[in-house]
Amino acid sequence: MVRVSIVMGSDSDLPIMEKAAQLLKEMDIEHEMRIISAHRTPEEAREFASSARERGVQVIIAGAGMAAHLAGAMAAHTHLPIIGVPLSGGALAGQEALLSTVQMPPGVPVATMAIDGSRNAGIMACQILALQDREVEEKLLEFRRNMAAGVRKKDASIN
Amino acid sequence: MVRVSIVMGSDSDLPIMEKAAQLLKEMDIEHEMRIISAHRTPEEAREFASSARERGVQVIIAGAGMAAHLAGAMAAHTHLPIIGVPLSGGALAGQEALLSTVQMPPGVPVATMAIDGSRNAGIMACQILALQDREVEEKLLEFRRNMAAGVRKKDASIN
Amino acid sequence: MVRVSIVMGSDSDLPIMEKAAQLLKEMDIEHEMRIISAHRTPEEAREFASSARERGVQVIIAGAGMAAHLAGAMAAHTHLPIIGVPLSGGALAGQEALLSTVQMPPGVPVATMAIDGSRNAGIMACQILALQDREVEEKLLEFRRNMAAGVRKKDASIN
Amino acid sequence: MVRVSIVMGSDSDLPIMEKAAQLLKEMDIEHEMRIISAHRTPEEAREFASSARERGVQVIIAGAGMAAHLAGAMAAHTHLPIIGVPLSGGALAGQEALLSTVQMPPGVPVATMAIDGSRNAGIMACQILALQDREVEEKLLEFRRNMAAGVRKKDASIN
Amino acid sequence: MVRVSIVMGSDSDLPIMEKAAQLLKEMDIEHEMRIISAHRTPEEAREFASSARERGVQVIIAGAGMAAHLAGAMAAHTHLPIIGVPLSGGALAGQEALLSTVQMPPGVPVATMAIDGSRNAGIMACQILALQDREVEEKLLEFRRNMAAGVRKKDASIN
Amino acid sequence: MVRVSIVMGSDSDLPIMEKAAQLLKEMDIEHEMRIISAHRTPEEAREFASSARERGVQVIIAGAGMAAHLAGAMAAHTHLPIIGVPLSGGALAGQEALLSTVQMPPGVPVATMAIDGSRNAGIMACQILALQDREVEEKLLEFRRNMAAGVRKKDASIN
Amino acid sequence: MVRVSIVMGSDSDLPIMEKAAQLLKEMDIEHEMRIISAHRTPEEAREFASSARERGVQVIIAGAGMAAHLAGAMAAHTHLPIIGVPLSGGALAGQEALLSTVQMPPGVPVATMAIDGSRNAGIMACQILALQDREVEEKLLEFRRNMAAGVRKKDASIN
Amino acid sequence: MVRVSIVMGSDSDLPIMEKAAQLLKEMDIEHEMRIISAHRTPEEAREFASSARERGVQVIIAGAGMAAHLAGAMAAHTHLPIIGVPLSGGALAGQEALLSTVQMPPGVPVATMAIDGSRNAGIMACQILALQDREVEEKLLEFRRNMAAGVRKKDASIN
Repeated sequence: MVRVSIVMGSDSDLPIMEKAAQLLKEMDIEHEMRIISAHRTPEEAREFASSARERGVQVIIAGAGMAAHLAGAMAAHTHLPIIGVPLSGGALAGQEALLSTVQMPPGVPVATMAIDGSRNAGIMACQILALQDREVEEKLLEFRRNMAAGVRKKDASIN
Repeated sequence: MVRVSIVMGSDSDLPIMEKAAQLLKEMDIEHEMRIISAHRTPEEAREFASSARERGVQVIIAGAGMAAHLAGAMAAHTHLPIIGVPLSGGALAGQEALLSTVQMPPGVPVATMAIDGSRNAGIMACQILALQDREVEEKLLEFRRNMAAGVRKKDASIN
Repeated sequence: MVRVSIVMGSDSDLPIMEKAAQLLKEMDIEHEMRIISAHRTPEEAREFASSARERGVQVIIAGAGMAAHLAGAMAAHTHLPIIGVPLSGGALAGQEALLSTVQMPPGVPVATMAIDGSRNAGIMACQILALQDREVEEKLLEFRRNMAAGVRKKDASIN
Repeated sequence: MVRVSIVMGSDSDLPIMEKAAQLLKEMDIEHEMRIISAHRTPEEAREFASSARERGVQVIIAGAGMAAHLAGAMAAHTHLPIIGVPLSGGALAGQEALLSTVQMPPGVPVATMAIDGSRNAGIMACQILALQDREVEEKLLEFRRNMAAGVRKKDASIN
Repeated sequence: MVRVSIVMGSDSDLPIMEKAAQLLKEMDIEHEMRIISAHRTPEEAREFASSARERGVQVIIAGAGMAAHLAGAMAAHTHLPIIGVPLSGGALAGQEALLSTVQMPPGVPVATMAIDGSRNAGIMACQILALQDREVEEKLLEFRRNMAAGVRKKDASIN
Repeated sequence: MVRVSIVMGSDSDLPIMEKAAQLLKEMDIEHEMRIISAHRTPEEAREFASSARERGVQVIIAGAGMAAHLAGAMAAHTHLPIIGVPLSGGALAGQEALLSTVQMPPGVPVATMAIDGSRNAGIMACQILALQDREVEEKLLEFRRNMAAGVRKKDASIN
Repeated sequence: MVRVSIVMGSDSDLPIMEKAAQLLKEMDIEHEMRIISAHRTPEEAREFASSARERGVQVIIAGAGMAAHLAGAMAAHTHLPIIGVPLSGGALAGQEALLSTVQMPPGVPVATMAIDGSRNAGIMACQILALQDREVEEKLLEFRRNMAAGVRKKDASIN
Repeated sequence: MVRVSIVMGSDSDLPIMEKAAQLLKEMDIEHEMRIISAHRTPEEAREFASSARERGVQVIIAGAGMAAHLAGAMAAHTHLPIIGVPLSGGALAGQEALLSTVQMPPGVPVATMAIDGSRNAGIMACQILALQDREVEEKLLEFRRNMAAGVRKKDASIN
């Protein structure tokens, strides 16, 4: 059963959004990737978000660029936690995507990541799932130990 | 029959958005004001936009602040021209509302006005209606003549 | 008879502004492209805008970069709806063009598109013309159905 | 047992951060408020974050202004989900707090809310807890129904 | 004979633009103030700028806010040096006025001052006139000596 | 006798600043180019600016990037009109150079051009010199006629 | 003998810059306050900075707003460490002062503080002096202990 | 004995941060380079900063990008002067790194350099050490003389 859904507005977003999928794969968390547009396929966006809870989805990661409404559109239709990934691309380098994602009005939050922070979105999804899944928590702790070890190794290598 | 619908996400937006209504009233154009939220009442937003064409609405003016998705949500559900009014308020003074409104992705444009430019949204609605309505056009031309006369009068008064 | 005029300040703007022309061609809407500068050929700008209504033009699309005054100069001389396209290029990546286009003073609005959003300007022109032209409306509806179908197809292809 | 910890760098942040506490109280979720500074009491920050998991805390909400490092400092010391609230105040109106909170490097995400979005941080905490707590989920659903009803009521009242 | 013309788009700009007039008065330079709008009275703007040279005007100071096109509109119609004063006011505090004034395209420069820098515009006009007028130059030198003396006096007073 | 001095802080600024020299050459105006740094050779900057008037210089064009103090340093030491050219380059693409050049304090203005607007600085220098030199004025008028003709020609060529 | 000089461009900067003086007084470090303008009294700025080393000054704190060149002008004339304090005030809230202070070109650094961070400038001066003065170091350590204790006390008081 | 420590969060920062090391080498100042992450190896960051004073370190240069917390994390654990270098890279070109580094809260300053201003950080470290080390001061003075000579030579070469 899919636990994390990764949605994006266009297939041009795939190269960035796949990093979330890759992270979830490393963590052995079942996930899916979907192309759904808040503006071009609003019905699909609504149906997808409204039914996610019943389908067993626990976290939705939504990546979008420019006037990035996808994460907000998801949040409007479900009470599942939505993780928003503002995507760069275009003249403003993702600044407008960041603001369109994070500056949500009262009542409907989106948990926003850095611009193009798709891999971090995968990690945040794990952090949320780990609250109820000891295995995920173990993998997360190992992931963090490895990350620290990587820094230490690089530190050692330059001296 | 209502020709222009003015929608906004919250009643706190009324003081600004009423200026569009006031302008339309001056121009004798039938209009309505509605409070509909893209995030808090997404079903209403969808139904409102989807049915607007049948109800005879010709232009929708949508005002919203922060991650201003309302104009975009309207545009997703109707092919009527949507005029977006980014609203100030909040820490970023409407900069994020401007970008969230204007930086729409390919295929789904929003005709964006200045921050808090609600009155100008009313004028733009008239300019669109004037293409098919001689009376509106006459009033618009008079409005522009008066505006110019006002500037000339002020110019005269300071010298 | 030309229904939509596309004006730009320099031939270096052609690669972007042609996308509006291309869209209008797809929609079978008669249009023209003109190079007119608000600063270098202000007389032409004035004459062009002042006479547009008589010539049967219904919508003007104006693209300009930097201190983008072209759309505003058009709006000063005609009550036809002006669609402004801020163009990137230069050190500020179109940010100043966006603000110079959208932040119009009270009384003289410009319907502003995203930076380099020339194709969307063409769509908005269609949305305006569709209010009085059933054929354009049909084509617009088909355009939107195709757009949605394209997203669905991509969605299917990645799973 | 405290399930959500709300930390902030200074007591001047209380008026904003209390809104998260208020929301959690409405939802009957046990919580605490703490004043801990990433820069002035870094040891407390480390001990607080490192021991949070053992103490039963499931989500940490961290609010800070200016070069807002508090949420990041929490995230460095625990794998619990951290919700960051950038606070306005100061010359840049929270813009630097937003960027300091959201632009986290790979591996250590912070789920960022809007500037001063403390109440939304409380809601996001509920959305996370609801994944494993049916009662919280019920309250959340009711909260969302009430929110929608509030918008509808305001809509009715202006017409 | 008027040597410096001060133009502004609205009488709401008077409190700031009068500082340029005041400076010119201190320097005994004949000047005038005019309210002319690039967007609302474009014909007046054109006539005013086109005829300025014949009327003996040597420098034009143009102050405008928001999408500040007035200085550029002047520059389009005369080869006299135009000094632009971006005015604050509105949601963006004059940032868009600054960019709309200074980011002029190749061929048509505007000598731009700081936001609300009306008094400095008066000084720059004097600096230009002083190139051909010994009296103005003397007054300018005295003005600069007094300015320096003022700083020295304040320095002395705090110690 | 040199009438316009072009100064820049580094020889890396030459490719941009040469465009001012090129324009002045086209206009037959005697000029010089100098590399002087406000921060690395402050004595030279002081001596250069202080003695410019006596040497017959009438306008100084100063180009600098980053914290662009060169134009301001010139303005501190002479009452000649200073034309500032903010240069791009570096992480902020000239935004800081623009603000450092244009936002001068009361009493000491710099006539600021667009980012990298070196050629326009040359034109502005001509516009100033033309006030007292009929030959320069004639050339300037011809330059403007040619510029307009160039636009018209391009307009003709695309239709 | 004065060890730290605090300079500012105008007496309007006193309310902010006095906080540096107050901090140095708390630390028993001899200091002075001076009003010197990089643009209005450039000779004084040069003499002050050039002679500071001989007079025994070890650190210079320079506060300025807008196109804040004062710290840079100091750095051009002495190899003593310069601490720059960008001051808010004006339309851009100190953003331009920050960039004008921090974005110094290669070779001439300014140690920049937060906008209006005058008190922190005093602390940084102490941190530098403490490297060679055990008494200052002791006071600094006590200052930091008190600061931490203050946070702990506030933490205790809200629970 | 190491007098200046250069720390950075990742080995991808080496190409920029090595410029600080290179400068210190030119000045014959003993230094070290370390890779330590405020977020991935917070324990190492704490131990490194806390023990720096005892190890004889006098100045710490910390370079980091994005939500650049490294300099602040150092400053939280030691009273040695910290020189912060915001690093570009990523969608926002170092703007967020600059604000995250410079906008430190009261009590814990970071002496901030320009974006990617690593070499200037080395110079500032020398300026601080020169206060107590005559040899370093001599080298610094020579460095500044050479720098000025370099500018003069380039000035001569273009004329």
